[in-house]
Amino acid sequence: MKQLTELQLLINDAVGKLSYPAYPADLYEPISYILSIGGKRMRPALLLLACDLFGGDVNKAVEPALAIEVFHNFTLMHDDIMDKAPLRRGKATVHEKWNTNVAILSGDAMMVEANRLMMMVDDRILRAVLNVFNDTATGVCEGQQIDMSFEERNDVSIAEYLDMIRLKTAVLLGGTMKIGSIIGGASDADAELINAFGVNLGIAFQLQDDILDVYGDPEKFGKQVGGDIISNKKTYLLIKALELAKGETKTELNNWISPGQFENVEKVTAVTAIYDVLDVRQYSEQAMRSFADKAFAALEAISLPEDHKQYLRDFADSLLVREN
Amino acid sequence: MKQLTELQLLINDAVGKLSYPAYPADLYEPISYILSIGGKRMRPALLLLACDLFGGDVNKAVEPALAIEVFHNFTLMHDDIMDKAPLRRGKATVHEKWNTNVAILSGDAMMVEANRLMMMVDDRILRAVLNVFNDTATGVCEGQQIDMSFEERNDVSIAEYLDMIRLKTAVLLGGTMKIGSIIGGASDADAELINAFGVNLGIAFQLQDDILDVYGDPEKFGKQVGGDIISNKKTYLLIKALELAKGETKTELNNWISPGQFENVEKVTAVTAIYDVLDVRQYSEQAMRSFADKAFAALEAISLPEDHKQYLRDFADSLLVREN
Repeated sequence: MKQLTELQLLINDAVGKLSYPAYPADLYEPISYILSIGGKRMRPALLLLACDLFGGDVNKAVEPALAIEVFHNFTLMHDDIMDKAPLRRGKATVHEKWNTNVAILSGDAMMVEANRLMMMVDDRILRAVLNVFNDTATGVCEGQQIDMSFEERNDVSIAEYLDMIRLKTAVLLGGTMKIGSIIGGASDADAELINAFGVNLGIAFQLQDDILDVYGDPEKFGKQVGGDIISNKKTYLLIKALELAKGETKTELNNWISPGQFENVEKVTAVTAIYDVLDVRQYSEQAMRSFADKAFAALEAISLPEDHKQYLRDFADSLLVREN
Repeated sequence: MKQLTELQLLINDAVGKLSYPAYPADLYEPISYILSIGGKRMRPALLLLACDLFGGDVNKAVEPALAIEVFHNFTLMHDDIMDKAPLRRGKATVHEKWNTNVAILSGDAMMVEANRLMMMVDDRILRAVLNVFNDTATGVCEGQQIDMSFEERNDVSIAEYLDMIRLKTAVLLGGTMKIGSIIGGASDADAELINAFGVNLGIAFQLQDDILDVYGDPEKFGKQVGGDIISNKKTYLLIKALELAKGETKTELNNWISPGQFENVEKVTAVTAIYDVLDVRQYSEQAMRSFADKAFAALEAISLPEDHKQYLRDFADSLLVREN
């Protein structure tokens, strides 16, 4: 059984060997650029891991794993335009370093490249693999659109929010592991179960991210604590707080998220205090645990040797106890 | 043998029946919108025609033909953002009617949808069809990037220009007919030949478009005559004129294409006069004919009954004598 860290290195190496034509430079250089600025290569490594766990040859899964990494970076390139983000992993985003047109078109070319890489599987599983990939890609587009639409709404429900994070981030994790399992030779039932494991783990992970943005250790979290509060981001915590708040607390919370200039530290302190009063952290952790439980239940049902399941369980645990 | 007009109606009907989820509305409504504002459905109809000519069942080619139409409209949606175009076929473009983010993301979703539709072929030809489709899509992205880069250059060569229009518009015509022929059961050799027919016809057609923009009958052409001259678009005519002009004529031409405000009619008249002096129209028509000849030569070599080839010959003739 291969170790995840080993597979991350393998993929990082393979990403470094991807090469693109020199011409037209403004189409291909941004692709090499965004792929070079790193990331943990967690998704492609998990594709390889899923393949390995089901007894497949990881060497036959490298191109599909690269397809996932290229696809993921394509969505980042386009999301950064939409979010007007100046930086990605501490480096200038493509639309800043080049321009928006270049970022649109290079992203489009990456999507085609991802399809090409994803096709590098045996004929007998080609259609199955591409079906999962297309469903995943559609889900990610839907999730991004729903997330953008939330910015203009103050009546987002918990159910809508969970559906959004499922589509925007979790289906890619599930689809990635499902593709790896198909290449590894998993049965249809096991492929569905590992998909469910990935999707539910992805939702749990995103909920943890929401919690850490408010309650994380600034040293370890690696992002500005309270960033979501400052930007009025519709997270599980804010949506839950809006649902629970009554009377004066509700007025106060609505005031903090209304348009206007606030001092950042003061706002973060005040909104966090409201969250504390409403027990929002506990509700969020409860939701996170319920999705983690679903992930573990799916894992339990998979026909894999116990030590293989334990490896995935340990991985999930390590993901979900980053800071608490 | 089916008629092209009949196949255009068939495709138009099939496009009308494409339906997308209601949610998220801002992802799917723009797709239905851009597909509803028309176009002649020439590409998908040619896919069906190629299938039919090689003895295939056009009903088995409808989804791949729709894939081509969806893909083409995805490129239009993104190109319109890049060109800041307010109108497409007389209607508001998606980025104007909604916004740029919606147009980026709906376009991305269309690309996935095109892949999904293109997969609706028999297993035995799935990989071949998708390979052509991916190569075509990459070509179109490259062509668009090269075209954008020309805007900032005054030293574009004829060879570079021909390569750009081949990629930006002609490979899609070639790839479309090639996919149709594969579905129809063509041999590899014939599929390559019909691809060559489509690519060379596409280049000839684009050269004709360049000529008509200057010398077309305004009544029949349907666009503002001289639009390319007004916008200093690098067409075959302008590039050839820059190559041929000497002395005073060169100075005069460079002056007209330098930054600055000019009266449109005056500019069009003056630049056209320079083109006339340099015989640019004749050179362009010669180039157009040479690509048309290549298209006809490829057609000649295809193993198809004479009446089938004649149908394609007549079609090509009708495309290339629109206005002169």
